[in-house]
Amino acid sequence: MKLYDFPKAPNPRRVKIFAHEKDIELELINCDMAKREHKTADFLKKNPSGKIPVLELDNGECISESVAICRYLELIKPEPNLFGENAFEVAYIESRNRHIEFELWTQVGVSWVNGPIVGSLGIFNQIPKAKEASDTNVRFFYERLNNEFEENKYVAGNRFTIADITLVSAIDFASDMVDLKPHKDLKNLHRWHMEVSSRPSMQIE
Amino acid sequence: MKLYDFPKAPNPRRVKIFAHEKDIELELINCDMAKREHKTADFLKKNPSGKIPVLELDNGECISESVAICRYLELIKPEPNLFGENAFEVAYIESRNRHIEFELWTQVGVSWVNGPIVGSLGIFNQIPKAKEASDTNVRFFYERLNNEFEENKYVAGNRFTIADITLVSAIDFASDMVDLKPHKDLKNLHRWHMEVSSRPSMQIE
Repeated sequence: MKLYDFPKAPNPRRVKIFAHEKDIELELINCDMAKREHKTADFLKKNPSGKIPVLELDNGECISESVAICRYLELIKPEPNLFGENAFEVAYIESRNRHIEFELWTQVGVSWVNGPIVGSLGIFNQIPKAKEASDTNVRFFYERLNNEFEENKYVAGNRFTIADITLVSAIDFASDMVDLKPHKDLKNLHRWHMEVSSRPSMQIE
Repeated sequence: MKLYDFPKAPNPRRVKIFAHEKDIELELINCDMAKREHKTADFLKKNPSGKIPVLELDNGECISESVAICRYLELIKPEPNLFGENAFEVAYIESRNRHIEFELWTQVGVSWVNGPIVGSLGIFNQIPKAKEASDTNVRFFYERLNNEFEENKYVAGNRFTIADITLVSAIDFASDMVDLKPHKDLKNLHRWHMEVSSRPSMQIE
């Protein structure tokens, strides 16, 4: 299986971490976002959204969206389980993963597209007020997480799941690329981040 | 099972349509968003995101997020299948559902919170430029869908799935509440909408 990838892009990283946890080998294909290779007509046949990652199966069929790709990998190699063992756990992990995606990741995205790095490219009509609001939302969500980690060892309870991969990727990208590192006083969040970041899979960029 | 619901709220509607398609009965509990009952301390114990829908099981455990609730219902009552029959189809349907959620629903949401109805409540610091951008993104996505429906009968290929429920709910909310009805020239999109809207489940508000 081939994974269309670009170094340091946060969504391909989610799939690479997931595959490492599963001990699944993927052939990485460089899709040069700087040259906008993800927007070419050929690539849009693989993913009409023009985004990476894309997983291309040996028969040529393609799957887009990080979480959909990870769920495919879970279904073809169920262990170690990262999506849940029974109906309730599957739903609970998905709900937690979605909280991170819709309430943190989307806001980090708004701060990113309206921030200095994207601004320097001059390809996007930026809205500074939108960045102010999303920066605030990110910080608010960090505080919520810090409270939740008072009781929960991991994002979805007491074991490592896909929801932790989603959160690590969001925080690392927000810290390194958007200047939204969690404040040092958020002790529980930092405890979780340090512990999860020590896993071998997390050394992947 | 109880579903925390509010009439005309688009996300609870997704679950109600899905449950109707599955012939699963849910006890509807009115959560009065106008009175901000979804933000009370008691409700935040059910869903820390303070959003509806929430599914409360008979043992008191709660599941938030429409798609997670629907996946739970699929797992406890697999037929008719709405999430996919095999690993590839499950992943493909999820990818299509996510395209609608992240590229259309999120933009409809930005237009909604920055639009006149939310504005009249005076509870949100609106950004008119953000609405201009999201309105444009919504219209662009409608055109993409119209092109895709040239070949595809449904959102995820040739059969009705959860991705169609996600799209109907987005378009109906955008049309009725955000003044973003798809242009009449988008014939394929209207063909799909008319066909899907004729299903008995879709009569649910």
